[in-house]
Amino acid sequence: MKIIIAPDSFKGSLRAVEAANAMNSGIKRAFPNAETVLLPVGDGGEGTMDTLVSVTDGTTKNVPVIGPLGNEVTAKYGILGDKKTCVIEMATASGLDLVPNGKLAPLETTTFGTGQLIKQALDDGYTSFILAIGGSATNDGGAGMLQALGLKILDENGNEIGFGGGELHKVAKLDVRSFDQRIKNSNFLIASDVKNPLIGLDGASHVFGPQKGATPKIVRILDDNLTHWANEVATVTGVFLHNLPGAGAAGGIGGAFLAFFSAEMKRGIDVVLEYSKFASFLHDADLVITGEGKVDSQTASGKTPLGVAEAAKLQGVPTIIIAGTVGDGIDVLHDHGVISVHSIMNKPMNLEESMENAAELLELSTEQVVRAWGSNPFHASAHVVPVTSRVLSNISSRKGRVSE
Amino acid sequence: MKIIIAPDSFKGSLRAVEAANAMNSGIKRAFPNAETVLLPVGDGGEGTMDTLVSVTDGTTKNVPVIGPLGNEVTAKYGILGDKKTCVIEMATASGLDLVPNGKLAPLETTTFGTGQLIKQALDDGYTSFILAIGGSATNDGGAGMLQALGLKILDENGNEIGFGGGELHKVAKLDVRSFDQRIKNSNFLIASDVKNPLIGLDGASHVFGPQKGATPKIVRILDDNLTHWANEVATVTGVFLHNLPGAGAAGGIGGAFLAFFSAEMKRGIDVVLEYSKFASFLHDADLVITGEGKVDSQTASGKTPLGVAEAAKLQGVPTIIIAGTVGDGIDVLHDHGVISVHSIMNKPMNLEESMENAAELLELSTEQVVRAWGSNPFHASAHVVPVTSRVLSNISSRKGRVSE
Repeated sequence: MKIIIAPDSFKGSLRAVEAANAMNSGIKRAFPNAETVLLPVGDGGEGTMDTLVSVTDGTTKNVPVIGPLGNEVTAKYGILGDKKTCVIEMATASGLDLVPNGKLAPLETTTFGTGQLIKQALDDGYTSFILAIGGSATNDGGAGMLQALGLKILDENGNEIGFGGGELHKVAKLDVRSFDQRIKNSNFLIASDVKNPLIGLDGASHVFGPQKGATPKIVRILDDNLTHWANEVATVTGVFLHNLPGAGAAGGIGGAFLAFFSAEMKRGIDVVLEYSKFASFLHDADLVITGEGKVDSQTASGKTPLGVAEAAKLQGVPTIIIAGTVGDGIDVLHDHGVISVHSIMNKPMNLEESMENAAELLELSTEQVVRAWGSNPFHASAHVVPVTSRVLSNISSRKGRVSE
Repeated sequence: MKIIIAPDSFKGSLRAVEAANAMNSGIKRAFPNAETVLLPVGDGGEGTMDTLVSVTDGTTKNVPVIGPLGNEVTAKYGILGDKKTCVIEMATASGLDLVPNGKLAPLETTTFGTGQLIKQALDDGYTSFILAIGGSATNDGGAGMLQALGLKILDENGNEIGFGGGELHKVAKLDVRSFDQRIKNSNFLIASDVKNPLIGLDGASHVFGPQKGATPKIVRILDDNLTHWANEVATVTGVFLHNLPGAGAAGGIGGAFLAFFSAEMKRGIDVVLEYSKFASFLHDADLVITGEGKVDSQTASGKTPLGVAEAAKLQGVPTIIIAGTVGDGIDVLHDHGVISVHSIMNKPMNLEESMENAAELLELSTEQVVRAWGSNPFHASAHVVPVTSRVLSNISSRKGRVSE
């Protein structure tokens, strides 16, 4: 019996690694001899760099950069186990977590630091990039990032504009002559589930501005400024970001990549699964267990459990989802290789209680679900192999890619 | 795929029949072609008569009797589908539910009506009896029941004593000459999980007296009176009820049966399973699903799910338990044929919410659990037979024992 354990985090209670460990304990309570592979994953949003560095046994490098508010912060980028692919997680340089409570400033926050991270990685010789752009604090259309890489963004007096989406109405000219030439010879894979265009009611400012601190009035300013910015970008690149799906990701930095980079945009979970070589672990697997804090009809649009299940289904391996909350509309998941969906709850309890005890509840529910699944002659005898677990999650204690 | 559905009630929210229907709907959502047999059961306590009459397609007969407080009530006894076995449910004649709130009178309540029920059934020609003795309001050692069947219980003046455990200290002589001779030629199977002796700190008065309204002072009176009663019974029958396990059941009526009847005492669930011919439905079954409101370490001492699982295990059929609340200490159940235990909860919620939505939650959880269990080649293909359900639960609509 071989089971792949590939959960996302249970937001607010368990990191993906902790969830995987709890699931593993539950499986071992049910079937001590089961072979398990712990492969905690993310959805390609925040935490993607750590996930991919962890599962590929890669490394990270600290880089001092200018943070979203203009002060210096220590960001980092990751190098995967292949020693060739660089993972840039935007949130480490320009993320909402770097902005203290009460200091939200959506007109001023800049993506400059993200550009500095890319520049440092280019300086270090990398040409293959994964960009995880979730959790940004910015709404500057990626202008700051482009400035860090040499693009001159000038006002009508020929002076460079300042940081933040609030400055973009000043743009009169874009001078690409000093834009980093190495960008052209590098590959950028953008991990993003966001399909929003740059501007309009479905655009970056209206949809994501409020969570970055924008009032309705500021939202309108930001949207007007991004419209002006999109017009200017089109004159230089020929790319019209206004209604381009994905251009609205992460305050419009998605559009900057699409216009100025040789960039491909992919669903986050698919990037994670591809680079963690998830498919290679499915060989001979009997079951995949995944999960996250909440599973419902939204899960069928790119979240971790669906991506995991789809990847497993391609190789004929069934997937079970275990979640904190199981909402409505989960039937559709059964079309994507998900055989069943379970909650960790074992009695009436409130949200706080469930989050405090999430690890134990997840362990207990996984045990019982795996017992139900595995209690038949087909699984219980035909496939049992008495080997120890391969654990791919414990970053600190393991040396090799697969530890026995 | 053939699944036996044999839940107890979910107390406060679902009767056993309703629980079985919800489980059946869930199974059919997962596997529309699965063959299901609905066999709602009880634990041999209150409701046993209805359960056995229902699953055997039997009948009931109303009998006017003297209730626990001395006023007339309409009790009834059941005749099983074999038309030979009579089920007496003590609670219909002498039950706590017949005593209005605030009228609890443990010194006065009598089992006389239960004796009248037995007498009527004897008059009607029955010689084979099941006695379900849960839910009694009495603490009279079964004296009232014996009086109704002709035993003379006399005080020192040769007068018959009155009703209730409070009278038992007056007993000076037991005259068996007019005791119903038909008792001797009949068989009595007592369904009871109670192993308590008649007297002492583990006896009827101390353990069960308080829930019948006895204050600590009244408990001591009742216990002293039952001691006196046991002494008198011993002089006539040679049976010492004092420390006899089971004699303390239902206010001591257990002891009366053991001393004066040809009686056998069995665990309630085993009586229910035997007379509902549960085992006969297990032939070719792939799975049994049972459940009740709460499952925990107590479940391993005679409650419905355990009895069901043990009976199924004898024929090699695995059992899954689905409960409202899954408590601690369930590991022991895995030794009795229970492959897994699941809760109906699918998100954080309070008790009221879970009870209000119990049917839907049970349906949804059953669906997912059965999906997990049945999603393997062994069950999903080898055993699927496209037949309709056999439903043994719908008393009002079915005529035959098994309706298609």
